[in-house]
This record gives sequence, structure tokens and C-alpha cells, in this order.
Amino acid sequence: MDERLQKQLDFILEIDKEKNIFRQTHLSGHGRRENDAEHAWHMGIMAWLLKEYANEPVDIAKVMIMCLIHDIVEIDAGDTYAYDELAKATKKDREDAAKERIFSILPEDQKKELTALFDEFEDCLTPEARFAHAMDNLQPLILNNSNDGGDWKEHGVSARQVYERQGTTAAGSATLFAVTDEILKKHIQKGTLRVASEDRADKA
Amino acid sequence: MDERLQKQLDFILEIDKEKNIFRQTHLSGHGRRENDAEHAWHMGIMAWLLKEYANEPVDIAKVMIMCLIHDIVEIDAGDTYAYDELAKATKKDREDAAKERIFSILPEDQKKELTALFDEFEDCLTPEARFAHAMDNLQPLILNNSNDGGDWKEHGVSARQVYERQGTTAAGSATLFAVTDEILKKHIQKGTLRVASEDRADKA
Repeated sequence: MDERLQKQLDFILEIDKEKNIFRQTHLSGHGRRENDAEHAWHMGIMAWLLKEYANEPVDIAKVMIMCLIHDIVEIDAGDTYAYDELAKATKKDREDAAKERIFSILPEDQKKELTALFDEFEDCLTPEARFAHAMDNLQPLILNNSNDGGDWKEHGVSARQVYERQGTTAAGSATLFAVTDEILKKHIQKGTLRVASEDRADKA
Repeated sequence: MDERLQKQLDFILEIDKEKNIFRQTHLSGHGRRENDAEHAWHMGIMAWLLKEYANEPVDIAKVMIMCLIHDIVEIDAGDTYAYDELAKATKKDREDAAKERIFSILPEDQKKELTALFDEFEDCLTPEARFAHAMDNLQPLILNNSNDGGDWKEHGVSARQVYERQGTTAAGSATLFAVTDEILKKHIQKGTLRVASEDRADKA
């Protein structure tokens, strides 16, 4: 077999491991924890279905591949919970090392291409990256909302923390941020999403 | 919330159930069985990475969305093992009913769009559908090959059966069929892939 194709197939086999990286989000119906591959699959379909709500026109193939690959580094770096401030401090170093190792399995041109797509997603400065981030935020919100906010309750996450993360959705899609805001307000009202004293002070 | 967006979000939540539909293929490293969402995620990335091997030029966004949604009907219809002849006889009826129920959750235009994409995949007559089928064949082959053909051994699958299924890969990608053939010949030689007496007669 040709060396180029062999490298591509080696990479394809390597990323199978992403199916063993579990997130904090639980599947609907109060199911088990979701893994990164499932999360990315869901985001890819969402991007395609919801593209009409992107703030700016997007190259949908680019958004989809960005969604599908954005967590590959977690094969080595593990999942960093969006609201774990300690783990977030070391996230970049762990993910940079992973990115170098895993994408290096590919032929050089595709290593560069995937690294660039991964970095573009992380930098979140293009319409595609912003819309992909909106998917990354909305997907667990939909599941967690269907499970009565159980993931927030389990980790004692505050409304302020959730708004900080979900706020990036607005840059990708004002419409989807409006829905997000509606869902979050409902959970604050129901008390499933904790309002910390400092949040209350903000509102005073 | 707008009715159209509500329908789209309802559909997005519904398809979360695909993560609970398990296939006969096992993850690499002799892992657990793989589910449909993971399989589709893997196919989507493969399509993007291997598009240079498609026999004909393909619209890669179309191939990717086809890969991502092609098993959604299994939420109701269940997974039909590629080598289970009894289950395959009722597959179409079960999947048609599922397609109608599940895609009807979407707004009418997107119901039509996804139904058309699903049917196009099934009919396998366009370059995109043929290449997506090549992914559907190659993805489990890569995993099963990494696990020493354990899935074939478990089900007593014969080389003839595997060639019948994997044969459709040639229509999507001659290069990827050549790799498939190489892998299958290795397993026949090692004895992990059974050659039934009728197969031997063919070769005589």
C-alpha cells in the first residue's frame, strides 16, 4: 500500500480512541455520560440543520469538519470540563502536545490542514469557527436542558459561569443565543441553575 | 421560540437516541461494541480525509451529511447486521416507517431534504452516495482488521459474504477497494475469514 494512504488509515484508526473520552454531559433520558465522538457527530448534524441561523454566511463543509475534529486532542489531553477552572489552566499545553503527536500521523499536507482547522476553531475569529463554537455550546445545553439541568446541579455550576461560556454563542448566531438565554432564564427561575451571591449583586 | 426552530431543536434532541443503537463492530483495542453515532462520526472524518480517492469528483459537504445521517432510522428500526440475511429481509419496511416518523419532526422543507439525502444514500446511484457507501464499508473493516477479524469470527461470516458487501466500495473508490481486497486476502490467508466450501468451488 502507498505510504500516503497508509498514514491516512493509521490516523483514522488512531482517532477511534476518541470514542473512549467521556464528557461531563449526560445523554438525554438521564442516560450515561456522552463521549467526544458522539458529541462531535451531533454538532456536525446540528451545524448543517441550523446553518440558516449563522450570523454570517459560512462554508458548511468547513464548519462540519471543524466540528468533527475539534476534540481529537482530548485522546491524549483528556476532557476538560468547561467549568473546571483548575484544569483549564493547563489545557492549552496538554492540547498542544496532543495536537502535534496526533496530527503528525497524517501526511504532511493534511497535518497542516487539520492543524490549521483546529487552530482556527480555537481562535474563534472566523464565521465558521464562531458558528462551530455555537454548536459546541448549544449541543450539551440541549441535552442538559432535557435532563432538567442535572449536569449543572452535579457540579454546582453558577448562572454566571454558564453565561460566560454560552456567551460565545452570540458571536456565531444571535438567534441561537436568544434560545440559549431563554433556556437559561427558565433554569434560573426553576432554581436548577444556581445564582451565586455575586451574580445577585450584579443584578441589584 | 419560533415554531420552525422549535421543530429543529426537537429533531436534534430526538436523534440523541442514535447513541444507544449498538452495532456488531467492536472498537479498536478489542473494545466494546460501537454505536451508530460513533460510526457515523468516524465516516464523516474519513470522507473528508480520503476524498482524493473518490472515483468521481464529489460535493464533500453532501457526502459528510449523508454519512452523518445515514443510520438515523435505526433509532426505531434497530441495527441490521450486514450479514444477517433474515433481518435484512424486513429491513426496508422497518426503516421506511422510521424515516417517516423521525424526519417528520423537522420543518417540511428539511424533512424533504433529509429524506432525499437518505434515499440517495440508499439508492447508491450518485458519486456522493457511492463514496459514502465506501466509507460505510471501510470504517468497520478498519476496526475489525485492527481486532484480528474478531467480528467476522464471532458471526462465522464467510469471505464471499464480505466480498459481496465490500464490493460496493469499488463503485465509490477503486483505490479504497484495492486496500480492502489486500486486507481481506490477508485474513483469508490467516484463516480469520472463513472460506466456505462453495467459495472454494468457485476458486477451483
